[in-house]
Amino acid sequence: MKKITAIIRPEKLETVKEDLAEKGFNAMTTFDVKGRGEQKGICLQFRGKRNLIDMIPKIQIDIVVKNDEVETVIQTIKQSARTGKIGDGKIFVSPVEMVVGIRAEEYITE
Amino acid sequence: MKKITAIIRPEKLETVKEDLAEKGFNAMTTFDVKGRGEQKGICLQFRGKRNLIDMIPKIQIDIVVKNDEVETVIQTIKQSARTGKIGDGKIFVSPVEMVVGIRAEEYITE
Amino acid sequence: MKKITAIIRPEKLETVKEDLAEKGFNAMTTFDVKGRGEQKGICLQFRGKRNLIDMIPKIQIDIVVKNDEVETVIQTIKQSARTGKIGDGKIFVSPVEMVVGIRAEEYITE
Ligand SMILES: Nc1ncnc2c1ncn2[C@@H]1O[C@H](COP(=O)(O)OP(=O)(O)OP(=O)(O)O)[C@@H](O)[C@H]1O
Ligand SMILES: Nc1ncnc2c1ncn2[C@@H]1O[C@H](COP(=O)(O)OP(=O)(O)OP(=O)(O)O)[C@@H](O)[C@H]1O
Ligand SMILES: Nc1ncnc2c1ncn2[C@@H]1O[C@H](COP(=O)(O)OP(=O)(O)OP(=O)(O)O)[C@@H](O)[C@H]1O
Ligand SMILES: [Mg+2]
Ligand SMILES: [Mg+2]
Ligand SMILES: [Mg+2]
Repeated sequence: MKKITAIIRPEKLETVKEDLAEKGFNAMTTFDVKGRGEQKGICLQFRGKRNLIDMIPKIQIDIVVKNDEVETVIQTIKQSARTGKIGDGKIFVSPVEMVVGIRAEEYITE
Repeated sequence: MKKITAIIRPEKLETVKEDLAEKGFNAMTTFDVKGRGEQKGICLQFRGKRNLIDMIPKIQIDIVVKNDEVETVIQTIKQSARTGKIGDGKIFVSPVEMVVGIRAEEYITE
Repeated sequence: MKKITAIIRPEKLETVKEDLAEKGFNAMTTFDVKGRGEQKGICLQFRGKRNLIDMIPKIQIDIVVKNDEVETVIQTIKQSARTGKIGDGKIFVSPVEMVVGIRAEEYITE
């Protein structure tokens, strides 16, 4: 299994969730984060003063899926979360070795 | 080392912490998340209207342990966090390659 | 690539960010967590009563970097986040298999 971590614009969360659900991906965990990319935030010119908007509020979505589902989830998020402007976000993929259900006797290793 | 990530019911946090501490596992990191499983939230019938309770508040617990401690931690959390009803949560295991202490000269690779 | 996860004192975040930026590491994701180490929190004596300060507020910083950047980031955080007192924090390193940009056609596997 893999964990797909997407850091997206908060206003894109609902669209991303709907588009993922349409493809059959309902399960996910989300939480509020702050972040910046390589550009070190956004620099806004305001009344002649430059203001560095440092850490920008984002939402992190973690989705654990089977290996052969990774590409579909990535492509779905890319399309849903994109505006074309700087700061659209990033997707990271990392290994997950085991998933255990707390209620049922589910136990997946891969 | 492995990172054990448990997504549990908020009201189960204290019990889980106590039961883990009893087995010698004190160190952990927790934070508030929202989530849903494959069922896509809970559907409540209310005055003839169906209401989808979408993302449910959960607590994420991250615990980094040695490989041979993984099973004990999983079984302890499974027993402590379980109610038997839908939404009890999930446990994920992922690899951790290095742990470095910031204060002391601790440095573990495995 | 690797994900470096640092759990630090909240009051050290600005220094850590500045020191990392000076070395060229701007990109990061942060969020508020609570945590305890092996000591199980801090035990304060107050008017003859012992009070266990259980889960202490910390900040988690996640930074995804290339393999050959890991050591620089770790050493920078160690120096910036250190006070020498108990509770300075921990750094964890874990594997990241893919990074995908949502806006641009960036796609890194390693
Ligand atoms: N290397 C990284 N490590 C950890 N988090 C990162 C990293 N790069 C980006 N992020 C997270 O992803 C969020 C979105 O990044 P962002 O869209 O600004 O990426 P970018 O590389 O600057 O791309 P863009 O050109 O679209 O601005 C950041 O706010 C941060 O939370
Ligand atoms: N595949 C997944 N990826 C990311 N997070 C997940 C995934 N599956 C579950 N979670 C997280 O775990 C929480 C608990 O899941 P939940 O208990 O609903 O699992 P479930 O598979 O629906 O099991 P149950 O049958 O007990 O309801 C979710 O709210 C979500 O935060
Ligand atoms: N094994 C672990 N798993 C998950 N999180 C951990 C673990 N160990 C430490 N942490 C996180 O790191 C934070 C800082 O840990 P802390 O500085 O107390 O480590 P320590 O081992 O007690 O070192 P010190 O001797 O400096 O107190 C904790 O509050 C917790 O959030
Ligand atoms: Mg950017
Ligand atoms: Mg469920
Ligand atoms: Mg400590």
